[in-house]
Amino acid sequence: MKGWFTEFHTPYVGITIRIKQHLYDSHSKYQKIDVFDTPQFGRILILDKLIMITEKDEYIYHEMITHVPLLTHKRPRKVLVIGGGDGGVIREICRHQEIEQIEQAEIDEEVIEVCKRFFPKVACEYNNPRVKAHITDGFAFVKNKESVYDVIIIDSTDPIGPGKILFSSQFYRYVYRALKADGIMTAQIGTPFYNPTHVKTTFNKLKKIFPVVRPYMAHIPTYTDGYYCLALCSKKYDPLKNFAVKRYKTLEKGFKYYNQFIHKGAFLLPTYVSKLIYNTNKNKK
Amino acid sequence: MKGWFTEFHTPYVGITIRIKQHLYDSHSKYQKIDVFDTPQFGRILILDKLIMITEKDEYIYHEMITHVPLLTHKRPRKVLVIGGGDGGVIREICRHQEIEQIEQAEIDEEVIEVCKRFFPKVACEYNNPRVKAHITDGFAFVKNKESVYDVIIIDSTDPIGPGKILFSSQFYRYVYRALKADGIMTAQIGTPFYNPTHVKTTFNKLKKIFPVVRPYMAHIPTYTDGYYCLALCSKKYDPLKNFAVKRYKTLEKGFKYYNQFIHKGAFLLPTYVSKLIYNTNKNKK
Repeated sequence: MKGWFTEFHTPYVGITIRIKQHLYDSHSKYQKIDVFDTPQFGRILILDKLIMITEKDEYIYHEMITHVPLLTHKRPRKVLVIGGGDGGVIREICRHQEIEQIEQAEIDEEVIEVCKRFFPKVACEYNNPRVKAHITDGFAFVKNKESVYDVIIIDSTDPIGPGKILFSSQFYRYVYRALKADGIMTAQIGTPFYNPTHVKTTFNKLKKIFPVVRPYMAHIPTYTDGYYCLALCSKKYDPLKNFAVKRYKTLEKGFKYYNQFIHKGAFLLPTYVSKLIYNTNKNKK
Repeated sequence: MKGWFTEFHTPYVGITIRIKQHLYDSHSKYQKIDVFDTPQFGRILILDKLIMITEKDEYIYHEMITHVPLLTHKRPRKVLVIGGGDGGVIREICRHQEIEQIEQAEIDEEVIEVCKRFFPKVACEYNNPRVKAHITDGFAFVKNKESVYDVIIIDSTDPIGPGKILFSSQFYRYVYRALKADGIMTAQIGTPFYNPTHVKTTFNKLKKIFPVVRPYMAHIPTYTDGYYCLALCSKKYDPLKNFAVKRYKTLEKGFKYYNQFIHKGAFLLPTYVSKLIYNTNKNKK
């Protein structure tokens, strides 16, 4: 339909969004980049025809992929973001005053530039002295790192195009090695309703590498089917047991989705999700 | 688009679904009724252009509106369903062997007939001797009842057309009176993301009538924005404290979404929902 953008979640279903204006239209070195202005969601960023962020609901994904690991970890100091060129994860990490260093490995500089220009409330911390953005392939960046980071957040696109390698076992093994002995990684692993196979396969890959793998759910209206699965993968800490309540208290006023109840509640899975992942209706193995 | 059905959740966003076949197309006495066959969701029932059920995800809504109250109540024997002509709630109630009588007040007989014909796995318990369907206005049916039911489930359409009156304070007062001294009612109260005002207004109405009102969330892919708010309204039992674990154990193998973790987890609200409802990021008042 003219004046509408439709993202197809499968060949047979999609979300369709009224467009006010096409603000940006470009092919970067890696992908197609579009920015639309919309009456429902404000500005939206599209990479290769898939919605990455919208002004109205970006906080949900960014809070959930960031604060769950940072408040599970006892004392995070150094964090790496792989991907995340919109700057939303970096913004959320910067809320944590005890974090000393935030590195980013983003392959596509144009995404960062576009987001600084069109999403100033998301890409708002690139001038923070704690933040260092490397324009580089995340796979190559993490390959030779050993025991460097407390937390690594993989804020990738879907497993197509430049993001595909960020779902490989080899990549997850490099991430594991790049983490300190009590390190935590989080990543999105897809939608159990529309793409159960991808969720299951990715969970199984992670389970072979990390001793603690806890899938959790977030409701994100503009993502595929609205119900997204993230995985917290950890060498030591367990989000069901570890929660830095003191640090949480200093931050909670800033959160719009995440809170102390959701920190546990997001891990309580519907039966079709727990059966998919654990082959049982129990919520963990 | 030709060959696609789009439900608009607001004037600016919708879900669009590929259609294989238009199986039924009618105007009943009360509303437009359509049944489509689709590759993604199997058959779907549309009333007045809004998706009511799909074969693939109907279990989520039906389990969540039914088992949460029935397993919060200590000893439910007599249940009333208002609306719910597709038969999905009745099917779920029938799983509970201790329920002796199930009454239904559905205004539109054609919906029941259509669902018996096109959704035989949903409208599958109309011949159960415990079930008595009254073809009548739910408002009028409940008006003069006093202390009759243990649980009343309001499975209404959205607050437009024939379903509108089922969101009125007067109706909720009749429901309150129709319940026994330890009775429970559940109802859907909408989507906090797209329609926060409706959720808030409905919650406030309920809070003036019932001593215990607990909103809870379910993820339903084909409902508005995928994230629906239900409310458990109770004279005595509290779902956060009361859970009939023995009865749960006899039933759990049949559940595809609901489980003992979700029974609590669904009440753990994201901050934007708890702020909307309770004006605080705490999950209850």
